[in-house]
This record gives sequence, structure tokens and C-alpha cells, in this order.
Amino acid sequence: MASLSSSSNKGSLVVKSSLIEPDGGSLVDLVVPEIQRAAKISEAEDNAKDGTLVNMSLPIVLAIDDEVKEKIGVSNDVALIGPNDDLVGILRSIEIYKHNKEERIARTWGTTAPGLPYVEEVITSAGNWLIGGDLEVLQPIKYNDGLDHYRLSPQQLRKEFDKRQADAVFAFQLRNPVHNGGFVKADDVPLDVRMEQHSKVLEDRVLDPETTIVAIFPSPMHYAGPTEVQWHAKARINAGANFYIVGRDPAGMGHPTEKRDLYDPDHGKKVLSMAPGLEKLNILPFRVAAYDTVEKKMAFFDPSRAKDFLFISGTKMRTYARTGENPPDGFMCPGGWQVLVKYYESLQAEDSPQKQTVLSA
Amino acid sequence: MASLSSSSNKGSLVVKSSLIEPDGGSLVDLVVPEIQRAAKISEAEDNAKDGTLVNMSLPIVLAIDDEVKEKIGVSNDVALIGPNDDLVGILRSIEIYKHNKEERIARTWGTTAPGLPYVEEVITSAGNWLIGGDLEVLQPIKYNDGLDHYRLSPQQLRKEFDKRQADAVFAFQLRNPVHNGGFVKADDVPLDVRMEQHSKVLEDRVLDPETTIVAIFPSPMHYAGPTEVQWHAKARINAGANFYIVGRDPAGMGHPTEKRDLYDPDHGKKVLSMAPGLEKLNILPFRVAAYDTVEKKMAFFDPSRAKDFLFISGTKMRTYARTGENPPDGFMCPGGWQVLVKYYESLQAEDSPQKQTVLSA
Repeated sequence: MASLSSSSNKGSLVVKSSLIEPDGGSLVDLVVPEIQRAAKISEAEDNAKDGTLVNMSLPIVLAIDDEVKEKIGVSNDVALIGPNDDLVGILRSIEIYKHNKEERIARTWGTTAPGLPYVEEVITSAGNWLIGGDLEVLQPIKYNDGLDHYRLSPQQLRKEFDKRQADAVFAFQLRNPVHNGGFVKADDVPLDVRMEQHSKVLEDRVLDPETTIVAIFPSPMHYAGPTEVQWHAKARINAGANFYIVGRDPAGMGHPTEKRDLYDPDHGKKVLSMAPGLEKLNILPFRVAAYDTVEKKMAFFDPSRAKDFLFISGTKMRTYARTGENPPDGFMCPGGWQVLVKYYESLQAEDSPQKQTVLSA
Repeated sequence: MASLSSSSNKGSLVVKSSLIEPDGGSLVDLVVPEIQRAAKISEAEDNAKDGTLVNMSLPIVLAIDDEVKEKIGVSNDVALIGPNDDLVGILRSIEIYKHNKEERIARTWGTTAPGLPYVEEVITSAGNWLIGGDLEVLQPIKYNDGLDHYRLSPQQLRKEFDKRQADAVFAFQLRNPVHNGGFVKADDVPLDVRMEQHSKVLEDRVLDPETTIVAIFPSPMHYAGPTEVQWHAKARINAGANFYIVGRDPAGMGHPTEKRDLYDPDHGKKVLSMAPGLEKLNILPFRVAAYDTVEKKMAFFDPSRAKDFLFISGTKMRTYARTGENPPDGFMCPGGWQVLVKYYESLQAEDSPQKQTVLSA
């Protein structure tokens, strides 16, 4: 067996659930004893035969370079080694394919322009070969950042929803602190601060802790717009969600070299409404919320009295925090706000010396 | 109603047929009286509701420029005018979208490299807007090249297959003269010469005229490989074919700027085997044929006695024709060969003065 310094974890145990059917008919957990393999393979073949369509819009692949490929040679199985040289899994009955980066990028992003963050960080430096096979995970991936208890597998999430006797599961994805209206596009706030703020939002019962589960989906953003949003939707289905809230331009970004959005802001929602394999997911349109200065609470934006509404951006939150001013009552729970104040203050402490450096240069 | 100098024809009359079900459940003929429209719309909605998947891998679009868009203004319907200023159709309840050429090219070809023939000939010079709507064709498109009787609509083809009581319809696509083994990749031979050669092949009963229909599919090649081959397959389904022969690298080409094939030669067949909406088509693998010098006929290539086989390329056929030599007996029917000899002789007549010009320059 050759060994390979890279890792991956995903979900052959069929999870019984009263919830929405997972994409493809059943959840597959790769962390299974060898003895169950034959039965699982036959099960998987039956799933494929029944005509169920599996939507896989983003390739989840493991790239290797020429050197690793040569090292693997004619081995049938490879060991997967984590960053600390720990054995995390075995890839059996491997197959190796050419990694056509240009075609992968063009078909995933609809552009090959330089400056796509995921391409620059992950693909450009990756090897020219892709390796696949039957994956056996020997130990679940840990980040050891104090947040691993939030990284729930689809099975764990479904078990939790069942325990709470959920008859409907709504999913929404947050990359920003939660205010009382849902979420706004704020300046990026790091994961640990966001998670702390989320826990305060539950503590202060803005969202009911009995019916709310906060979890981290450790899937790096591709910013591949309509292509990526299908992956987000599929992953939520597999985690048990049957309602999914989609906004304008989901997973979109500005064109890396032209002064325009990379994607049509309506294409993400349109693609989800017709993507094969995702029919069972109910798509909820995202409605714009803002602070209603008359009702003194977050509310759906009413264009007929636009002047009553206040849009509180990340920049504005940061200004409030810097000047020691509180946001208007009803915008965010006090506990959650204090988490952000602390964070924004730490940024100021970092920013000031930097600015001075610039001035004196 | 605004008018628009461009045209398109395609196929709401449900065509009854004992043949393979058309892609989407039923053939749609847009040349219908207005009185039938409401019923047709309701029928189309029912088709969409039953979950039938329609595969549409290549966008069939009509691009307009800023000037035409401005001319259309707030019109609801536009007239479609042919190249000779003749009214060919009406596009009703129009919608106009941005033509994102980069995204279209990247998602269709998997590259945005310069030098893609269809991109350079059709897309680059096209307008920045795409117009769509309900199409009513007022007169079928004619090419007036003496070959229009070969341009059969899906309805006409299905009617013909029914008349001949076909229980299976095999489709294969030719861009080259037919020899006795099927087809080879030859130097391009113009459409009229190929059609004349095809008719000789039927006359000489190499293919049985009772069970063979030769027709022209007026769809320009995109050379978009695995994406385009789905369109070819869908079009054949709609024309009634239930068996389709697919070779290596269908609709593929060399990378326009790199020294490699643009597509993995196996991806076309792989994509067809799993493309939603094309399940009803039986894919037959293409087997390589060559001239068997022992058996003195075209036969499937047998690698165990490779030296007995002769691959007769377009270049070699041209050499035979130039030197007045006949290809080996059993390679091509004599009538078909004479058509090619005449064509290759006409090329020589054209070539010679050109060569002299080059020499004297």
C-alpha cells in the first residue's frame, strides 16, 4: 500500500430517518467495518439501478502530483496521511485520472479569468492527476480549534432532528453574525467570533434553542455561484433539511477582472428550481430584512415606506462598536452585540499601529 | 411588432409514433394555427409537471445587438426576417437577456482559449443580448442549394420510419464519404459531393435503400465534445432513433492553443451514459473498421493481425484519385468512388495554378 499526504472525510450505514430523503436515496457513512462492505456495495448498486439521480455539481477530488503518482506505482490501495503524519484513511481500488485544470475551472466557474480565490488557493498549485477509489475513513477529521463539537456529520444532524421530533427542517447558511432579522452581508468576521455570537443569540432566545441547531459545514467556499449553490443544497438535503433559503446571487462574487458580477444574480435560484436530483428540497426565496425605525425591530423591508428602514452594514456595526454606541434596540440581542464589540475593539487595537506605520513610511 | 433580421426553425402538434419517445415526451411543431395555442400551452405545462427531464446541453439562442434591442423597445412580439428580407416567423411574448459570452463559452467548451471555430465564427461577432419567446414559424427555412429535400424535420423522419414499419432505428452521423465499413475521418469533402456519394452507396445497395434514410441535420458543428454529443443524441431521439453509434472523442477537436486533445476521448461516451433525459437512447460503441487485405473487404480491425489491415485516409483516397488508381476492391462501391474521383480531380485543377503562383512569387 502506498501512502498519500492528504485527507478527506465524508459520509455505508443506511440512516433511517423520518426526515427528507437524502440525495440519492440514502446516506452513506464510509466509516464502516470491512465485513459489511459486500452488502453495502450491492445496496449501492441497487440505488444506482432505480434511476435516482444524484446531483454532484462541484467535483470533490484529491489531486496528486507526478512524484506521488510514481510512488503509488501499481499499488491498488493507498493510505491517506493527515497533516500531522497521522493515518486518517485508506483509499482502495484506486483509479488515477488526468487533472484537466482548465476544463475543471471553466465548467465550474464559467470563466478562466485569473483571480478566482479557490482556484488560486487550491487548484493552481495542485498536482496534474486526480485519484479516486473506495474510501475508508479510519478517524474522523478534527480541526482541534475548539469548534469540532460544532462539526456535525449528516448522520449526527439527522439523529438530532429525529430526537427533537422535527417535522420540518429549515436550513440557512451564515457567513456573518446573526442579527434579529436573519443575516446581513457584513465585513468578514472570523469563525470563532461568529460561533460565539451565534451561541449568545440562542442564549438570549432570539432563536429558540429547542428548535435551533448550529453546526459548521467544513466546506470551503468556491464562489462558483449557480454551480456551487447546488452543492450547498445537496449537502443540506443530506443533513436532513427539507427547506432551504436562497438569496440573490448565492455563492456569487464580482468578476475577478471585469467590473461586473460574475453571475446573473437570479441564476442560482433558477438553477436550483430545475437541477436534477434536488427536486425534493423546498426552496424559500430570501426576503430582504432591515431595521424598522418605527416598529423598532427587524422586519421585512417595505419599499412603500423605505425611509423608515435602516440597513446596518458590517461597516456601520464596526463604527457603532468603535464609538461605544449601541445599535438601535431590537437590532441584535445584547449578548451577541457584546461579542462583536469585543471583536471590533481587538481589530482597532491591531489597526492603529498599522495605520501609524503607514503614515510614518 | 418590431422586426428582426435573423431566423430559426424547429419542430405543438403531438406526433403519434410507435418509435422511441421523443426527448421530453412529445415532439413539438411550432408551425401551428393560432387557434390551437392555448391547448398546446396547457399540454406543455403538463409535460413539465410530470417530471420528465429534457436534456438541452447546447444553448440554441438568437443574439441581438444594442441597436436591434433599442429598435424592439417595449414591443411584445417581433417579426423574424430571413437573409432575403422575407418574413420567416414571429417571436411572441419576447424576453431579452444579457448574452454573457464568456460564461457561455466556458460552460459549453470547458475552455475560453482563442481559436474555437464556432466561437470565432458565430459568438464573438454576435450581439450582447439574447432574445427568446414563443416561436411561430411562417415558412420552413430553405437553403435553395438543391439539397433541401434531404433536410427532413423530426416529424417527417418519424413519419417515414413509421411508413417503413421500422422496429429499430439506428442513427449514425457522417461528416465524410461512406466507404463499405462505415466512415473514416477523411479530409473534408463538401456537402453536395458527400450527398451524391451517399446516393451512389444506396444505388449500389451497399446500404439497403429500403431500410436506409439519408437526411441532412442542419446543425453547425460546435466541436464542444461531451457537451455537444448530448445535443446530437437528443436530436436523434427526437428524429426517432433509438440506437446511436458513438465513437471516441465525439465532436472533439485539438485544443486550440495547446498540443493536446481538448477533451478526454472517453468523456463523450461516459457523459451520454449518464446524462439526464437521454436514458431511452441505446448507445452502441463505435468499433474501428479498416480494409482487410486478406478477406478483401472492410472489416472490424483485429489487433492480433494488424499488418493485414489497411487504413485508407482521406489523403490516401485523394492520392488514389490523383494517380488514377482505384482503391482496393471492396473498399468502396464503384459508383461512390467515381463521385470522389470527380471531386478530387476538380481540386487538382484548382490546386495546380495556385501552386504555380506560389512558385513564381
